Amino acid sequence: MTSATYDVIGVGNAIVDVLSPAQDAFLAQHGLDKGMMTLIDTERARALYSAMGPGVEVSGGSAANTLAGIASLGGTGAYIGKVRNDTLGGVFSHDINAVGVDFRTAPATDGESTARCLIFVTPDAQRTMQTYLGISVTLGPDDIDEGAVGDSLIAYLEGYLFDPPEAKKAFVKASEAAHAAGRKVALTLSDPFCVDRHRDSFMHLISGHVDIVFANEAEIKSLFRVDDFDDALQRIRGHCEIAALTRSEKGSVIVAGDEIHVVDAAPVARVIDTTGAGDLYAAGFLYGLTHGRNLHDCGRIGGLCAAEVIGHYGARPEVSLRKLLADSGI
Amino acid sequence: MTSATYDVIGVGNAIVDVLSPAQDAFLAQHGLDKGMMTLIDTERARALYSAMGPGVEVSGGSAANTLAGIASLGGTGAYIGKVRNDTLGGVFSHDINAVGVDFRTAPATDGESTARCLIFVTPDAQRTMQTYLGISVTLGPDDIDEGAVGDSLIAYLEGYLFDPPEAKKAFVKASEAAHAAGRKVALTLSDPFCVDRHRDSFMHLISGHVDIVFANEAEIKSLFRVDDFDDALQRIRGHCEIAALTRSEKGSVIVAGDEIHVVDAAPVARVIDTTGAGDLYAAGFLYGLTHGRNLHDCGRIGGLCAAEVIGHYGARPEVSLRKLLADSGI
Repeated sequence: MTSATYDVIGVGNAIVDVLSPAQDAFLAQHGLDKGMMTLIDTERARALYSAMGPGVEVSGGSAANTLAGIASLGGTGAYIGKVRNDTLGGVFSHDINAVGVDFRTAPATDGESTARCLIFVTPDAQRTMQTYLGISVTLGPDDIDEGAVGDSLIAYLEGYLFDPPEAKKAFVKASEAAHAAGRKVALTLSDPFCVDRHRDSFMHLISGHVDIVFANEAEIKSLFRVDDFDDALQRIRGHCEIAALTRSEKGSVIVAGDEIHVVDAAPVARVIDTTGAGDLYAAGFLYGLTHGRNLHDCGRIGGLCAAEVIGHYGARPEVSLRKLLADSGI
Repeated sequence: MTSATYDVIGVGNAIVDVLSPAQDAFLAQHGLDKGMMTLIDTERARALYSAMGPGVEVSGGSAANTLAGIASLGGTGAYIGKVRNDTLGGVFSHDINAVGVDFRTAPATDGESTARCLIFVTPDAQRTMQTYLGISVTLGPDDIDEGAVGDSLIAYLEGYLFDPPEAKKAFVKASEAAHAAGRKVALTLSDPFCVDRHRDSFMHLISGHVDIVFANEAEIKSLFRVDDFDDALQRIRGHCEIAALTRSEKGSVIVAGDEIHVVDAAPVARVIDTTGAGDLYAAGFLYGLTHGRNLHDCGRIGGLCAAEVIGHYGARPEVSLRKLLADSGI
């Protein structure tokens, strides 16, 4: 690829996470779908927050976590996403700038609050997410900085963007700007329910706009409405240049035309909280891809980064991933 | 003691902590006094936050941490402190209510923002705190709920309250309400610089109003302007009923009239972040005292709670202290 200011530019919902431990009985009592992301309105957010235990606030958002991971690896990145000029918006902006990612979007001066995601972490380390989108739903085509997109090797878009209607248009605009500049477009499917809500749009967009697809096992099965992983794997071939399919402790499978790589998971001493596992896998994979690594190594770097983030509470790396990678011998 | 609704009522600066790892070079570069708490204004807060790495927001405030610890031990508690009706104020209120502490103070509807404390945690686990007091400085006598104070076995006051001028009056009012109801008053000296700023007022108040004093080695030495721990120890005798003096890995010394107990520290696998060590020692000690334990056991319970909180990032317990105590055999 020709050189660019940024390795990756991410477009996503700019969200502050509120994490709290919870028991399975709590999920049942409040009708929460374990392991899933559910969109909630202001009222529901208020009620759930009242019932929630004491929390920890950290910047989140799927693509933003990925960009934080790329920066920690020593890569260059920019981010597009919408916050309000309120306290949590300030926290989000500070944290993403502090890790060295260029945050390109001006905060809104009126409207709803900065988006937040209530994350209930059960003792089995699964996270159940309840997202109040707030101001992030106003992200639209006008927020896409085409110059910055054209100056990035890869534009990385989160599937969650398909929920806010204006963001879909932003997605298309970003994809067209990337391709016009000879760059690549990557998409993560984000969540099996999100795929279910937007299956046809996803298929259209993958065929028309997307070069690299990230999905976990549940998401890729949902996309093709099949029950078997290998069925899904065979179907995604030919739809995009590269598909990186993650399978938790089973590692990942990378499909690129005739190439197929089956990559083992990296060892984890103890899984504490799986929030951000997919986001950090994408970070490692995209870092590898923009630094001339082969696909097998891209998958291994992705696994290494995912293993770091699930070993602690929260969805962003706690150690230098650059050092972790250097020490790994990959 | 006769029964009461609350074991302990705390009065303090209601603060949200922003924690971030930092190197010693960063402290030097920004002129920060390692291990100390420094008060900063809005401008300085803005500048330091810009320079700070990505953070984690958690509810803090010294006395509030203590009350959270007492609740985690299964004790009953209430808290008086001032927040604004803004996002961080909502976070503070939610978190303290969520652990079961009655938060008695209505949020302010105008004025400065909720207080925050920028905490830089160095690799040696020391924390350096920069506090922007915000709305918390408006805490005054009108915020003291005398009924609730009279209905608590112990009123626990943080020395940090001596910085905002109105809070000193609130302190005296709370002490008088406690004593009028036949209750005890406890004070923590909070910080050696805080003692230095308010030495005479502290001495007056201890002699006139305080039954139980908590201090670490640096604070008690500062109070009496002596260089030797044992000198300070001898001088505090006779000034109050009970003094609980903490000495980090050397444990604590409890002085009560002719009684002196030297209590070993509880073992800690790995010290991660010492934020909250003193707050949680006080929690364990006060829980013991209000549950009929002897002074030696009060010190051991304090040490156990302090050991839990320094084993992780942040100043509030992450496990049930009630269970930890039950398993300890104390």
